[in-house]
Amino acid sequence: MIGTAQKIAIEKTKTSKITSVDFDNLPFGSVFSDHMLVCDYRNGAWEAPKIMPYQPISLDPSAKIFHYGQSVFEGMKAYRDKDHNIWLFRPEDNYKRLNVSSKRMAMPELPKEYFMEGLKTLLQLDRDWIPQSEGSSLYVRPFIFASGRGFHASPADEYKFIIATAPSGAYFSSGKVKVLIEETYSRAANGGVGFAKAGGNYAGQFYPTQLAVEKGYQQVIWTDDNAHEYIEEAGAMNIFVRIKDTLVTGPVSDRILDGITRKSILEIAREEGIPAEVRKLKVNEVVEAAKNGTLKEMFGAGTAAVVSPIAAFGYRGSDYDLPQLEKSYASRFKKRITDIQYNRSEDSFGWRFKV
Amino acid sequence: MIGTAQKIAIEKTKTSKITSVDFDNLPFGSVFSDHMLVCDYRNGAWEAPKIMPYQPISLDPSAKIFHYGQSVFEGMKAYRDKDHNIWLFRPEDNYKRLNVSSKRMAMPELPKEYFMEGLKTLLQLDRDWIPQSEGSSLYVRPFIFASGRGFHASPADEYKFIIATAPSGAYFSSGKVKVLIEETYSRAANGGVGFAKAGGNYAGQFYPTQLAVEKGYQQVIWTDDNAHEYIEEAGAMNIFVRIKDTLVTGPVSDRILDGITRKSILEIAREEGIPAEVRKLKVNEVVEAAKNGTLKEMFGAGTAAVVSPIAAFGYRGSDYDLPQLEKSYASRFKKRITDIQYNRSEDSFGWRFKV
Ligand SMILES: Cc1ncc(COP(=O)(O)O)c(C=O)c1O
Ligand SMILES: Cc1ncc(COP(=O)(O)O)c(C=O)c1O
Repeated sequence: MIGTAQKIAIEKTKTSKITSVDFDNLPFGSVFSDHMLVCDYRNGAWEAPKIMPYQPISLDPSAKIFHYGQSVFEGMKAYRDKDHNIWLFRPEDNYKRLNVSSKRMAMPELPKEYFMEGLKTLLQLDRDWIPQSEGSSLYVRPFIFASGRGFHASPADEYKFIIATAPSGAYFSSGKVKVLIEETYSRAANGGVGFAKAGGNYAGQFYPTQLAVEKGYQQVIWTDDNAHEYIEEAGAMNIFVRIKDTLVTGPVSDRILDGITRKSILEIAREEGIPAEVRKLKVNEVVEAAKNGTLKEMFGAGTAAVVSPIAAFGYRGSDYDLPQLEKSYASRFKKRITDIQYNRSEDSFGWRFKV
Repeated sequence: MIGTAQKIAIEKTKTSKITSVDFDNLPFGSVFSDHMLVCDYRNGAWEAPKIMPYQPISLDPSAKIFHYGQSVFEGMKAYRDKDHNIWLFRPEDNYKRLNVSSKRMAMPELPKEYFMEGLKTLLQLDRDWIPQSEGSSLYVRPFIFASGRGFHASPADEYKFIIATAPSGAYFSSGKVKVLIEETYSRAANGGVGFAKAGGNYAGQFYPTQLAVEKGYQQVIWTDDNAHEYIEEAGAMNIFVRIKDTLVTGPVSDRILDGITRKSILEIAREEGIPAEVRKLKVNEVVEAAKNGTLKEMFGAGTAAVVSPIAAFGYRGSDYDLPQLEKSYASRFKKRITDIQYNRSEDSFGWRFKV
């Protein structure tokens, strides 16, 4: 058990890379900060976390991560306000979800202090890496993977928990996204691991997404694997539609990630009196609404892309354009959320977390 | 392109570990031979493979294998006969399947020579590591994973192909296996990645398997994720049942791995005149057959466990024992296959491959 940040041993870098970074032109997730947190699980227990210079990890070729995809991760963002305070958004929910994911992947749960104190200590140390410009933030990636050895297909006996961070710009380089409603491939099985942020869920989406990209779309909207009848979610976003003035999103399930942005939007909608329904959403209903003009908006919601308006969707060979609204729900939710995240507004929900 | 084995650079170990290994008491897949083959994919091409001492791999913490489970593997065995010839079993089928898996995981396909010449050169070099005792062999693990960097959920731009080997004893420590027919969790989705030997498919099975182990079973038999109505496969084995004298196994699909042992058994059955049916197999049919005494055998088939007789299966809270047969199909297939593998018999199929 670590009780306070002081107990985390810190080895500082001798040569900061920060002056080599162009903070005005940040890519997403490919420039890395000076430090990382590393914590090993061995002999049935998590050892003390250490902060060290961001550096390569050395692993045995039989480490189970290479063979059996035993890994989970989280995606968060750290924000800096004009007074140089550092903020996170609902980090305890990321902590809880990490453990939900770990359990499903037969991985050891992480004690809360390791996550929260680890985050705080690392972000304090690399605070200068947190961008301040609009739309930029420090992307924070906590992850756990199987470092234990062996070619037997069974859970590893050793794991590594790492937090690495990357100052990042927008997730989608172009503003509006064109999506394809998928009917051939699927993301998740009933009784599978779709609700977990497990590594393998993501690699499985790459090929179908490539096929969609070749057809001119940026993202796939997944549907149920049984009959491809219901809208599920996108690669790293939950999906909302607005039919007339009602917001609709599918329920979370064992196939769908319980997104923090999604639930925040639902809470904002409730507070602002926007009619919202959480119910199974048929592809047909969305197509019909697009045809008869009642489909006003469609957007993705996730930490990386925040609220990402969808410009058009493809389905069975036809493309359906969404109207361009002056006052969209998407922009309203995005403003409300980012104002809280960057400490530009009151936070009546208590979501902002001071580091 | 490499044309011949000579072109693979070899760095030999200075200190062989072989004298420290107890070849009479080999575990499965946790003792590793002296050398490994490593080949990097960079700038859109596979570089020349190298053989080097088995050693840790160094990777950036943002390598996509850690985050998105982008990896595929194969499992093979090398055998040594009494004249010290080295044999593989249908290795070109493993090569082909590796590429099938890679394609689904949006990973670059590997040229055939890299795989075949790499295998041959490595096995020649580590030939003394191939056990000769009955039931033991050198387990061969070719695998490819995403080494390219970045937190963007998209395919990596760099990969590593590695072949590592482990002298191994039996996969299941106890001879006969008790399995649970699973009705809550699932292994694969329609349109998913179940047919690929992709890392994430395996980690997803660990937790449900742990729950089964707690109830006294060794393995889970997966069923379809839709209604759990049909028998699919086990964790690392395809499943056969014998009802009266007919052998039945389910068809392969996009959810089920096209096992090399499975198809070899079907070919042997054809040659030996054993009636065999490849058709969807209802759980109910198996339960009924167990109840009315027509279910004679049930066994798993896979490289690691070869042919693995099932002693009993659990379903909806009841256990069903399989009879103990004097002359089982399982032992007949196992003998036929291992005799070919260890070069103890003619190989009318042309499956044995001399290294
Ligand atoms: C599959 C998937 N769905 C939805 C989301 C959105 O979740 P959150 O809003 O918590 O970032 C993510 C991830 O970030 C995801 O990976
Ligand atoms: C899921 C799965 N099914 C079946 C098999 C059996 O395939 P093979 O006989 O080619 O080893 C394996 C692996 O080895 C497997 O991983």
